[in-house]
Amino acid sequence: MKKTEREKMTAGEAYQQFDPELIERRKLIRQQLKEINQIVDNEERNQRFKALLADTGDDFFVESEFKFDYGFNIHIGDHFYGNYDMTFLDTCPITIGSHCYFGPNVGLYTPVHPLDAAQRDADVELGKPITIGNSCWFGGRVTVLPGVTLGNEVVVGAGSVVTKSFPDKVVIAGNPARIIKQL
Amino acid sequence: MKKTEREKMTAGEAYQQFDPELIERRKLIRQQLKEINQIVDNEERNQRFKALLADTGDDFFVESEFKFDYGFNIHIGDHFYGNYDMTFLDTCPITIGSHCYFGPNVGLYTPVHPLDAAQRDADVELGKPITIGNSCWFGGRVTVLPGVTLGNEVVVGAGSVVTKSFPDKVVIAGNPARIIKQL
Amino acid sequence: MKKTEREKMTAGEAYQQFDPELIERRKLIRQQLKEINQIVDNEERNQRFKALLADTGDDFFVESEFKFDYGFNIHIGDHFYGNYDMTFLDTCPITIGSHCYFGPNVGLYTPVHPLDAAQRDADVELGKPITIGNSCWFGGRVTVLPGVTLGNEVVVGAGSVVTKSFPDKVVIAGNPARIIKQL
Repeated sequence: MKKTEREKMTAGEAYQQFDPELIERRKLIRQQLKEINQIVDNEERNQRFKALLADTGDDFFVESEFKFDYGFNIHIGDHFYGNYDMTFLDTCPITIGSHCYFGPNVGLYTPVHPLDAAQRDADVELGKPITIGNSCWFGGRVTVLPGVTLGNEVVVGAGSVVTKSFPDKVVIAGNPARIIKQL
Repeated sequence: MKKTEREKMTAGEAYQQFDPELIERRKLIRQQLKEINQIVDNEERNQRFKALLADTGDDFFVESEFKFDYGFNIHIGDHFYGNYDMTFLDTCPITIGSHCYFGPNVGLYTPVHPLDAAQRDADVELGKPITIGNSCWFGGRVTVLPGVTLGNEVVVGAGSVVTKSFPDKVVIAGNPARIIKQL
Repeated sequence: MKKTEREKMTAGEAYQQFDPELIERRKLIRQQLKEINQIVDNEERNQRFKALLADTGDDFFVESEFKFDYGFNIHIGDHFYGNYDMTFLDTCPITIGSHCYFGPNVGLYTPVHPLDAAQRDADVELGKPITIGNSCWFGGRVTVLPGVTLGNEVVVGAGSVVTKSFPDKVVIAGNPARIIKQL
């Protein structure tokens, strides 16, 4: 059976970004984000966000100006807190464990464009998933690149750019992020 | 006399973030920020911001999408200019001298979470103050971590992550920020 | 013939930021950005942005929360895509070639303030242009400093801070950005 463009995209394969189903979803999400990010009532805002994401758990709390691409590739465990202005680009799956706390301006980016300019000019798009374990704490303005997996109980210093995967129980920081402490 | 949760928080001690006074204040601030950040008239927007901050001086000017946590821990001197999208997390005091200019997207973060995941999971929150001297210039997208003190006439390069304190009259840049020039 | 303050600013010379023409333009832009960034319809939003910029080409697409200072110093070629929350400070010219793709939160900053605090306190402002070639790809949260020129087919890794110029066909990353691959 032929894969849909959404299925190809989610699998990290080259896909057509101008596929009607994907265009429709992007429009819906952008319209919904405009509305939801205006909602001051925490309960109402969080419920509206949850309705657009693939999976979320108990105690989901995200401050305003949360932005993402599709929502259907975002999976978040219980007890999640995300501060102002998070941006999750979820062409591929973004999976976050339980008890994670994110500072403001965290950016998780799964899209990958080819390094070859001719392919980019032809609108070829790819992607790689991002996976974050349980009980992780991200300081503000953390950037995570496509394909990164972090273990459990990882602390990421504010302003870090995480370009590769790290195991459980480490503090990482810097650009590119490196281990600065074992826990 | 027993400290209130607000007093503990401001002092950098472990506090209960679900304290009713703090919840109420966070709600007020988020509702006010939504309103104020829509105001195009500079005079009106700046006056409304000033009313929520602990202390501000003459010639206070902040562009839109300024965000903070409480406001009651933000102290700013005369002749302040802040560009678009600043985020000040003020669980502990943020003190900024006179004649400071901040580029867009500056983030000052005072909250500290324990490195121990079990304590984080139990919602223990701490913090450390941030203090900036007079006549400092911050380029765009500067991040300042909890506990940092900067002297007078400090220039911080765009995109820097300031993880420790620096004295007067230096240019600092990088992640982590280091002295690149004495003034 | 005497230069206007706008002409001095665009040329990178010291100018009066409180010049009536510049104040008027900043007001107009901030009011327009508030309106335009609420528009969910892509075609309408993009047309409204184009009307405020100096030059743009075919296939111009910018997601919401795009911000800039004046617009009259922003020149962009054909087939441009810019993701959420870009900030272009265009006191001096920002010139972007054709077929460029920018991730979210890209910041291009042309303003320069003097390193001497006394001059800053006297509101002296300067600037340097930013020039980007054709077929460049910027990951998310890239920061570009005043005076930078990038060649064609340059890839800039997410989270990079670009402090100097680079030639054609390189991948650059880090803070400060360095060449990590020749293409």
